[in-house]
Amino acid sequence: MLVIRTLSKYHSFPLVSSRSWRILGPSCAAFALNTSDLLNLPGNRLIGYKVEDGVKKMDVSKKSKKSKFELKTPKGTRDYGPKEMAVRRQVFEIISKVFDAHGVERIETPVFELKEVLTGKYGEDSKLIYDLQDQGGEILSMRYDLTVPFARYVAMNKIANIKRAHIARVYRRDNPAMTRGRYREFYQCDFDIAGIYDAMVPDVECIQIVDQTLRKLNLGEFVIKVNHRKVLDGLFGSCGVPSDKFRAICSAVDKLDKSPWEEVRKEMTEQKGLDEDIADRIGEYVKLSGKEELVEKLKKDDLLSPSKDAQTGLNDLTLLFEYAKCLKCDTKLVFDMSLARGLDYYTGVIYEAVLKCELNDGGEGTVGSVAGGGRYDELVGMFDPKKKTVPCVGVSFGIERLFALMERKKISEGKMRTTDTHAYVAAAGKGMLPECMKLTAELHEQDLNVEFPYKKNPKFLNQLQYCEDRKIPFVCIIGENEVKDGIVKLRDVSSREETTVRREELASEIKKRLAL
Amino acid sequence: MLVIRTLSKYHSFPLVSSRSWRILGPSCAAFALNTSDLLNLPGNRLIGYKVEDGVKKMDVSKKSKKSKFELKTPKGTRDYGPKEMAVRRQVFEIISKVFDAHGVERIETPVFELKEVLTGKYGEDSKLIYDLQDQGGEILSMRYDLTVPFARYVAMNKIANIKRAHIARVYRRDNPAMTRGRYREFYQCDFDIAGIYDAMVPDVECIQIVDQTLRKLNLGEFVIKVNHRKVLDGLFGSCGVPSDKFRAICSAVDKLDKSPWEEVRKEMTEQKGLDEDIADRIGEYVKLSGKEELVEKLKKDDLLSPSKDAQTGLNDLTLLFEYAKCLKCDTKLVFDMSLARGLDYYTGVIYEAVLKCELNDGGEGTVGSVAGGGRYDELVGMFDPKKKTVPCVGVSFGIERLFALMERKKISEGKMRTTDTHAYVAAAGKGMLPECMKLTAELHEQDLNVEFPYKKNPKFLNQLQYCEDRKIPFVCIIGENEVKDGIVKLRDVSSREETTVRREELASEIKKRLAL
Repeated sequence: MLVIRTLSKYHSFPLVSSRSWRILGPSCAAFALNTSDLLNLPGNRLIGYKVEDGVKKMDVSKKSKKSKFELKTPKGTRDYGPKEMAVRRQVFEIISKVFDAHGVERIETPVFELKEVLTGKYGEDSKLIYDLQDQGGEILSMRYDLTVPFARYVAMNKIANIKRAHIARVYRRDNPAMTRGRYREFYQCDFDIAGIYDAMVPDVECIQIVDQTLRKLNLGEFVIKVNHRKVLDGLFGSCGVPSDKFRAICSAVDKLDKSPWEEVRKEMTEQKGLDEDIADRIGEYVKLSGKEELVEKLKKDDLLSPSKDAQTGLNDLTLLFEYAKCLKCDTKLVFDMSLARGLDYYTGVIYEAVLKCELNDGGEGTVGSVAGGGRYDELVGMFDPKKKTVPCVGVSFGIERLFALMERKKISEGKMRTTDTHAYVAAAGKGMLPECMKLTAELHEQDLNVEFPYKKNPKFLNQLQYCEDRKIPFVCIIGENEVKDGIVKLRDVSSREETTVRREELASEIKKRLAL
Repeated sequence: MLVIRTLSKYHSFPLVSSRSWRILGPSCAAFALNTSDLLNLPGNRLIGYKVEDGVKKMDVSKKSKKSKFELKTPKGTRDYGPKEMAVRRQVFEIISKVFDAHGVERIETPVFELKEVLTGKYGEDSKLIYDLQDQGGEILSMRYDLTVPFARYVAMNKIANIKRAHIARVYRRDNPAMTRGRYREFYQCDFDIAGIYDAMVPDVECIQIVDQTLRKLNLGEFVIKVNHRKVLDGLFGSCGVPSDKFRAICSAVDKLDKSPWEEVRKEMTEQKGLDEDIADRIGEYVKLSGKEELVEKLKKDDLLSPSKDAQTGLNDLTLLFEYAKCLKCDTKLVFDMSLARGLDYYTGVIYEAVLKCELNDGGEGTVGSVAGGGRYDELVGMFDPKKKTVPCVGVSFGIERLFALMERKKISEGKMRTTDTHAYVAAAGKGMLPECMKLTAELHEQDLNVEFPYKKNPKFLNQLQYCEDRKIPFVCIIGENEVKDGIVKLRDVSSREETTVRREELASEIKKRLAL
């Protein structure tokens, strides 16, 4: 017998099986009974449970503490309220316009994938993947990024080439740091080009998109760092790093944006067993940064010139700088030998945009990476039964950081609006609601965004207050006389000036003043 | 010892515990071992497994069948490709504009909720909720609709009033019928007004929004059926239905849009044990439909006039028709006594928009409900510790059906474009790629959407073909001479006419022709 204690009473259920308990209760359908089901008996608040003649005993008291219903969103997630949404929509609109300027198509994939699709793609981070419960069907996991689903989509549909964007939320069961914008559910905004094209052409378009987007967002100064995996591999090889340590040393180099060289050197030598003189040789190079002249200098460098990999990478970078000049996205571009990028799957050019903080809020300096990406030519092949691959290059915007910056900017500018209402129809005097509705419908037909009161006899000042709170620019005031005379009192909310306008000219007057 | 056989070889792992197996393998981190983990060993394709000195044996052969990797999306889900996305974005834009016209704010909630939040809200359908695996933390479920998360949001943030929209996907582990647009992951588009206002004012705005949206989508003729839960309750009471059977009889009435009266009567009498003469009395009323004169007629009806509930509901409907006239959304409005709506939580006015199919594709008649909603005054109170409630009214659009209809319409009109590219810069002759890039950047600066070739020496006809395939309206052709002379050959893709334009006038010429 299984006894379940809820807030109101005890319920007893027969124990069908000791391994997979099933209960048939008066208030709930038959369902497999496990801890989570017990905690969520429909309509009841569970205090505890115990198995009287079953095999196992459970600590009831521990469960009782958890049973108090706390109204919250899941750990690491949050609601977006109207203000956050207004900022978010603005950021999306700016990014979308840049995408449209490049003829980018959109795709959307399911929020979860077969677990197998994600398996073996994220290395150690696989433990951060959210799994769905096995409810008798497929084994599913929440997507961890948009790149792996994109590669699955390309392979599954045998697509030879596509230029696509995808803006959506991804899920990581990470330790959230919500004050620093790190969530378990967060937006990514990805742009990728798949297909066999000439060297550096789609690559430079990614950089152009980052450059144009950050200019349009206008959140402060930025640089776009660029490097090449083959340059790094060539450097590591020439310095004497064993090839099976390339990725480990690469991920150590990647930490140079946050840690001083001394710490990174320690990681290389002490944790990853690299010879000290090899580490020092690498140290000389990873501190280099510059423009195309650094690329040319390194081509003739004694250590790098014999490396085929390094030369291939450097030639790519020469071409990249040349094309970037043509596309007018070279001014913020910097060749930075310390840029390594964490992910394993990059095979060519890599880049990262770093925004310098200009929103004086105590902290100074850079806010860090707001976009990053690179070339990954092998990922699609991992999904193809014949290992046929499609080369890809892409960029992902760190949208949550951009939201946070844009929000602070909007608040400091005092321009925050959560709606785009052009005018409010206000009633002067009693019984005017039907007339307010009629005028609203007339203005809607003229493509104006117009609200009206939700009360039969709203107080006049409350209506004006609503408009001031919402920053609605105009109020159209009507009383009995205005209706009779076919006129409307048009009030400018910020200047508080009122003018009388003929009803048939009202829409065009509002449009004129709003420059619509 | 646990032996795992993968495609390549056998792996042996020590069995740490017979209940919660843990393995520490060479290629995988330590993790709790259960069936789903076994099926997904990182980097390996699992063939089968057996426990050699453990407690339990598993059938290896069954697992081997499942191990073949099938490239697909989860059951009941799909990818949206560029064409589907183009249609979807258009539908969203139309709906968003209508929302903006009403001063609607947006919110967004997490894709999953604490399981407790969803518990006890959906009755029998709770079994269709997707649960997340208990990975050591909170017990989570995927949202089942947007209404319950909205009520949770309102209660949690102690919001007294809000007018909000939310467009997002919801999850139901239902039997998918994808050819008929029924998915496990699908969009809902909800508009709701929470707050204490005067009778029927926010309610009529919901109807106005449905009316305006369906007109703007222009997908065919439609009607908006309206009824009132109190009129139904009054009817049931007056006919002699026991009050504990109100909801059951209500859900039988709800089937009248798909089933003939005879079947519904059978459900009432045989399944739900209603007296035959009571059912017949109900049958006389639920076949009624009309406009405001039917409302007035029923107010004086012998059976309904003594019912306080029925009179309250009918008075509301009188007011609704009056307001609908003021807001010019009365022409499609029909009082339909057979409308009942499935969900339990409605407490007042209910409505449903039905679109008549005009896209002759074999089937005739109505495509069925594309929007529905009503008043639910008690739901928010279910989340408030003190049961303080906030009355709500709302509407939800059945977006997937609207997508499908819009897609067919666009295809039949031959207007389907997946990008909004205004012009393509094409190279005439070799070595022109850098010049194409320069011109592209110039046109981007003029806010034009412009693409360029991804090859150093693209074939001229391939470039024109690309523009025809993508329905890009203009091609800007440049060769060495054009660059030297500061001119561009502007080709109209549909008429194939070419004119020579001075380079500095190119952007304005394209804008003029596109009426931008």
